[in-house]
Amino acid sequence: MSVTVDKPIIAITQGDPCGVGPEVVAKALATGEPTRACRPVIIGSIESMQQGIEIASANLSLRRIEAIEEAQATEGVIDILDTNVLDAADISLGAASEKCGQANGAWLVQAAELAQSGRAKASVMAPVNGEVLKLGPDAGQVFGSDPTQKYLTLLSGPLRIVHVFDHVMLEDVCRKLTSELVLAAIHKTNEVLINFGIHSPRIGVAGLNPHAHGPQETSAIIPGVKAAQAEGIIVTGPISPDTVFRQGIEGRYDVIIAMFHDQGHIAIKTWGFVGNCAMFMGAPYLFLSVGHGTAYDIVGKGIASHEMMLAAILQAASLAAGQGFLD
Amino acid sequence: MSVTVDKPIIAITQGDPCGVGPEVVAKALATGEPTRACRPVIIGSIESMQQGIEIASANLSLRRIEAIEEAQATEGVIDILDTNVLDAADISLGAASEKCGQANGAWLVQAAELAQSGRAKASVMAPVNGEVLKLGPDAGQVFGSDPTQKYLTLLSGPLRIVHVFDHVMLEDVCRKLTSELVLAAIHKTNEVLINFGIHSPRIGVAGLNPHAHGPQETSAIIPGVKAAQAEGIIVTGPISPDTVFRQGIEGRYDVIIAMFHDQGHIAIKTWGFVGNCAMFMGAPYLFLSVGHGTAYDIVGKGIASHEMMLAAILQAASLAAGQGFLD
Repeated sequence: MSVTVDKPIIAITQGDPCGVGPEVVAKALATGEPTRACRPVIIGSIESMQQGIEIASANLSLRRIEAIEEAQATEGVIDILDTNVLDAADISLGAASEKCGQANGAWLVQAAELAQSGRAKASVMAPVNGEVLKLGPDAGQVFGSDPTQKYLTLLSGPLRIVHVFDHVMLEDVCRKLTSELVLAAIHKTNEVLINFGIHSPRIGVAGLNPHAHGPQETSAIIPGVKAAQAEGIIVTGPISPDTVFRQGIEGRYDVIIAMFHDQGHIAIKTWGFVGNCAMFMGAPYLFLSVGHGTAYDIVGKGIASHEMMLAAILQAASLAAGQGFLD
Repeated sequence: MSVTVDKPIIAITQGDPCGVGPEVVAKALATGEPTRACRPVIIGSIESMQQGIEIASANLSLRRIEAIEEAQATEGVIDILDTNVLDAADISLGAASEKCGQANGAWLVQAAELAQSGRAKASVMAPVNGEVLKLGPDAGQVFGSDPTQKYLTLLSGPLRIVHVFDHVMLEDVCRKLTSELVLAAIHKTNEVLINFGIHSPRIGVAGLNPHAHGPQETSAIIPGVKAAQAEGIIVTGPISPDTVFRQGIEGRYDVIIAMFHDQGHIAIKTWGFVGNCAMFMGAPYLFLSVGHGTAYDIVGKGIASHEMMLAAILQAASLAAGQGFLD
């Protein structure tokens, strides 16, 4: 078993038991790719995952483990930690359930604790239903309390986009953008990418206005980029927002910093690459999630695509091992 | 010859003689597709176009005509109107030239006059160099004087995007967006699409803020869309900006109205479809242009792609004939 010791342990929360999480996790693991790259461990319910395996018609068996270190990366076997927080009778496929939301929250907190303590190298999240998710009273400690240093980051093949502002009104983006915010995003991105094994990260920075010519470029983006360049960081910008993402697809940058939510989200979603996933650059532990939701409308049919789930697991394995991003 | 009479005459300005215009026009015509769809007539210089034919290694001959109505749509033959505004000695491939800019301006004015008078059904523009382009004193009359009723529109296969604001700073977009502007863009788009032969245009309207939830949605976009719906126009919105363009690719709308430059431009350029072209929705005549520039760095090598030029010519032919957009 010595060969498996070097593979990072990846904690995978199975997602909302009422949604497509269990079936896409099963499909992703059935490809055999995750166990070649890491030791995946499901945090969830044995009954729910068994249901997911059956829906996915996956050739997999479940093996209950008591400590995450027992994970073995055996193809065809899913190692699972089940702390009995969910009664299988409370699962109603395709419908929101408070009890499933509570269980899902408990699994996320457990995975976060495992990742923060180093017992797992990453936490990967299958789709949750945000409306019923309950993280419990200790969630603040677990997930970190400084949201200004966590940046929503979308990964889509060679296109990797860090967002300075996420769900912020566009008029506030224009008003609040400063060189300090731009520089902080560059700093955090550079630091995290080096930890991921990318020794001299190439960072592209989008402008805010058409062709990257406007008051915020002058007051915030140009000074932020210049300050980072003066420190030796390999950063280019501001680049015209309608050009920089295509350049990213062509491999010119390891990552692109977008100024606001829709710059990055329009690029990712319109491009149409299927293996999208999300992470928070600068979170206190490596945390990735799939790029889709619970899809109650198609749950149980075995037709949900596992591409995003598989991408999230494999990206987590690569980043946790310090081997950089997968394209 | 009777079969050619029904084909619309399309005036094609050859573009900057120092850029890739002549060679991509030659390549596009050499495919034979334009003469099957229309009667293309080049407005330009015989010597420059001869050079373009040679660079493109195109199997084409030039036929000088004196009046645009002589156009015959003969495959392998380029009909050309040459008013002798350019001395061939003034062409320096790959370098800006004032005299070429003047000639290019004269050709554009000539094509616009032909299109406005109805002698041509459209004007299609090969790449110009905006820095040397001189349109002359009559340009205002020719191109129309009310810029508020012309909307930059990008066409990229099934993705067709009208822009309410073009080169406007983002903070001004947020400040200036009104329900009147949204409604005016919907009105003009609907009217023009009906003229193009699309009887009940399906129009999607993007929001401005993340997930289309914000003050401008409430104050401007929702009331603009509702007013148009009350008139019977088939319009949906505001739709989340990161969703609407993917829906457009999937064929859900005939056209999408974007609020500002980069919403549409990020979508078009990141998607990566090669047959892009541009038009002005609501211009006083049908005017299309290629989606690329003069590309001085690769001029004369015969490697410039003709895909965008061909798309512009074929779109113009289809729209001029009232046959709707080509995918």
